[in-house]
Amino acid sequence: MKPHILTFETYDDWDQGPLEDTYVIHNLPHGGKIADLSSEAIANVEAFAFKGHEQLGASIMDAFPRLGMIANYGVGYDTIDVAHASSKGIKVTNTPDVLTDDVADLAVGMVIAQSRGMVGASEWITSGNWAKQGAYQLGSKVSGKTVGIVGLGRIGRAVAERLQPFGGDIHYYSRSPKDTNGWVHHDDIVSMAEVVDILIVTLSGGPETVGMVGAEALNALGADGLLVNASRGTTVNEAALLNALENQTIRGAGLDVFENEPQINPRFLALSNVLLQPHQSSGTTETRKVMGQLQRDNLAAFFAGDPLLTPVN
Amino acid sequence: MKPHILTFETYDDWDQGPLEDTYVIHNLPHGGKIADLSSEAIANVEAFAFKGHEQLGASIMDAFPRLGMIANYGVGYDTIDVAHASSKGIKVTNTPDVLTDDVADLAVGMVIAQSRGMVGASEWITSGNWAKQGAYQLGSKVSGKTVGIVGLGRIGRAVAERLQPFGGDIHYYSRSPKDTNGWVHHDDIVSMAEVVDILIVTLSGGPETVGMVGAEALNALGADGLLVNASRGTTVNEAALLNALENQTIRGAGLDVFENEPQINPRFLALSNVLLQPHQSSGTTETRKVMGQLQRDNLAAFFAGDPLLTPVN
Repeated sequence: MKPHILTFETYDDWDQGPLEDTYVIHNLPHGGKIADLSSEAIANVEAFAFKGHEQLGASIMDAFPRLGMIANYGVGYDTIDVAHASSKGIKVTNTPDVLTDDVADLAVGMVIAQSRGMVGASEWITSGNWAKQGAYQLGSKVSGKTVGIVGLGRIGRAVAERLQPFGGDIHYYSRSPKDTNGWVHHDDIVSMAEVVDILIVTLSGGPETVGMVGAEALNALGADGLLVNASRGTTVNEAALLNALENQTIRGAGLDVFENEPQINPRFLALSNVLLQPHQSSGTTETRKVMGQLQRDNLAAFFAGDPLLTPVN
Repeated sequence: MKPHILTFETYDDWDQGPLEDTYVIHNLPHGGKIADLSSEAIANVEAFAFKGHEQLGASIMDAFPRLGMIANYGVGYDTIDVAHASSKGIKVTNTPDVLTDDVADLAVGMVIAQSRGMVGASEWITSGNWAKQGAYQLGSKVSGKTVGIVGLGRIGRAVAERLQPFGGDIHYYSRSPKDTNGWVHHDDIVSMAEVVDILIVTLSGGPETVGMVGAEALNALGADGLLVNASRGTTVNEAALLNALENQTIRGAGLDVFENEPQINPRFLALSNVLLQPHQSSGTTETRKVMGQLQRDNLAAFFAGDPLLTPVN
């Protein structure tokens, strides 16, 4: 007898196949409603294979009487009401570590691509402007710039390591100093923003990090400063960021995450000093396969009664 | 009495002002002809402040009886007939080192941006597709990939240093082994291409490097391979490269340089597996100011009879 699980959103073939081999699959598509699921699904689902950025709150959990586990596909679980899950004995897992490299790679890519105007430079060729009008506008140098990492977890550390050979000093914000390769600790984001050229946000999501980079930090970053957000849209005060970009009180931003994504604020689209990415920081084939495997391994451990591989609660 | 010099192309204000303070300036604009210059210019010009990618051959040098120096703005001088200059006692200088960081930064940026589809991902947002159609297509992981550097000069070394913390092995091609941080030497480009995932060309230009990366190397690189060219368009056999991209016998390319630029082959524009950049590898305000200063310092040394700072011949 295969156990019943509920999958959220869509899975690639390399994940869907192994899931179907092991479980009876019920699916909640993007924007789907619990009320549209069969009574068989409601009665039998014991685990969620969760994915995506919609809220997963108490009402959804409470709708499934046999629910014992939520296996999240992704490292961030800020959309999951973990406190409620814990109160009901529902186990939550995520997929940490396996996407650290990809997120750090894209953060470095955003630093370089925004500073060097790489998207505009590409369009300069494809539009024919290079042949017709000559050289593209000058960009901003990356090497030698002072970098400030907001949140020195696994991803922040991976970003700092990758930027170290670019030759600028590395600063980081965290509550307490950490063992580093000579990087400068700050316990205040604003004072760090004052002394760095590039501020890179790698905080985890969740209520405690909402708006941690606000107007004061952006003002301290200054007119030559670049903000890169590779964490969650909520960690940066988006209203303050839009004002800073529109008024050019910072030089620019590279953003992979937004409030209310994918319905992002249309004011971003009118700006020439932003590099926009569609929350694709873990979006490589290699990493997504590893994430799917880790999600399935957590599900398998749950149904076998074994210790979970990467528990959240 | 100010000496007379001939400037080529246009200079930014921060260069033009200091040049005018010191010299009587004659200018040859892009596509301009010697025949359009005044007889005063022809008779009096003692030095060229050269820039750009048009050929600077014997006939232009021979047109100026008092020419004693060519100060090139840029590290590459493959368009200058240095042998002819030397035969006439004309000194040639370039601006090495000062643009190494920028070229290496853009090479790393091309690796990440092409692998992660960053230009297409940006368009995915600005076109509204993210909101309407959901997630962008998956990219290719960068971290952990084996890198091969073709030509381990200053720029090649700077690229390798920047990519080292991404965790993949570093290989390099050069005629003889060099002192490195554990990088693997190859004396053959094709055999190196067989074992790497990302082939990055950082050769200097000039006749001896024409077509050094050809069809055989691209074939060896293989269907998962990425080619990045941050050197000169001539170092890669462009016909072979276009075939490889169109037939997807390599995964993709990041290109800052082309044959016949800026009139690049229109076949590049039809490809979805290339990242195109308009020869902007040294294109930052910071570096261009330093390049202009070094060009002027070489001119000043020439007119003072002092040793040149960065002589080519």
